[in-house]
Amino acid sequence: MRSITRGLALGSAAMTLTALTALAWPGAAGAAPAGTASLYPPSALVLGLTAGEDADAGTVVRAVTLVCAPAPAGTHPAPAAACAELRANRAGWDALAAPAADTACTREWNPMTVTADGVWEGARVDYAYTFANPCGLRNSTGVLFDF
Amino acid sequence: MRSITRGLALGSAAMTLTALTALAWPGAAGAAPAGTASLYPPSALVLGLTAGEDADAGTVVRAVTLVCAPAPAGTHPAPAAACAELRANRAGWDALAAPAADTACTREWNPMTVTADGVWEGARVDYAYTFANPCGLRNSTGVLFDF
Repeated sequence: MRSITRGLALGSAAMTLTALTALAWPGAAGAAPAGTASLYPPSALVLGLTAGEDADAGTVVRAVTLVCAPAPAGTHPAPAAACAELRANRAGWDALAAPAADTACTREWNPMTVTADGVWEGARVDYAYTFANPCGLRNSTGVLFDF
Repeated sequence: MRSITRGLALGSAAMTLTALTALAWPGAAGAAPAGTASLYPPSALVLGLTAGEDADAGTVVRAVTLVCAPAPAGTHPAPAAACAELRANRAGWDALAAPAADTACTREWNPMTVTADGVWEGARVDYAYTFANPCGLRNSTGVLFDF
């Protein structure tokens, strides 16, 4: 009987865990959900490049995915470097998007907007940065938006 | 000389193309950008599952990526089926998220919110749907949010 009692006690303890436990039902047969058993907060992003200055209404001409947990992956050309950059720059995304200080660009107005949507370390992200022209984008500081 | 003239004419024609051509500079050395040469409008999504009813402030407990062009891919457990579902339901995402008609659920308030962020066929997406409790999510109509 002791073992049964213990089993029930464990069951009760499990039920007091809130959201995470409530989500731990078995997945669909044959499916292998990627993040179900992960102990990391999810980090999955869609990085987009939009022609024009309006990130919401403009047409997205390119988009890549970037997954940073549990391991760097996605269609981004350099996922490991991009994830490392993001981790090192918690302060702000602008530091990664802004053109590097030592670059010279023409100044015409031909705007390009980069966007980041999705989840970063468990929090939803909705970021946009507009460059005056493609030169600024090409010379952006980091590799995150170099796709 | 004729061939040179033709080359210049082609160059001028290319310059009249606006945004897409302006973006066609060579990528960084060694990188293989995923969508650069694609003729498809980009479709890349991050699907998230948030505990609670606030998709913006809540904590995302799971997130997967889904790429639908040029081919289904990503960390979603069934990318091909999810992309097919999305293509067949241009009218609305709610049809994919809503619980199927023939399911019975308890009615307690333990909300779960699913989100879709990123790009769908060249347009940015910011979608959220809140279920009253996990039963509704488990019985959602489609496979899109079954991860």
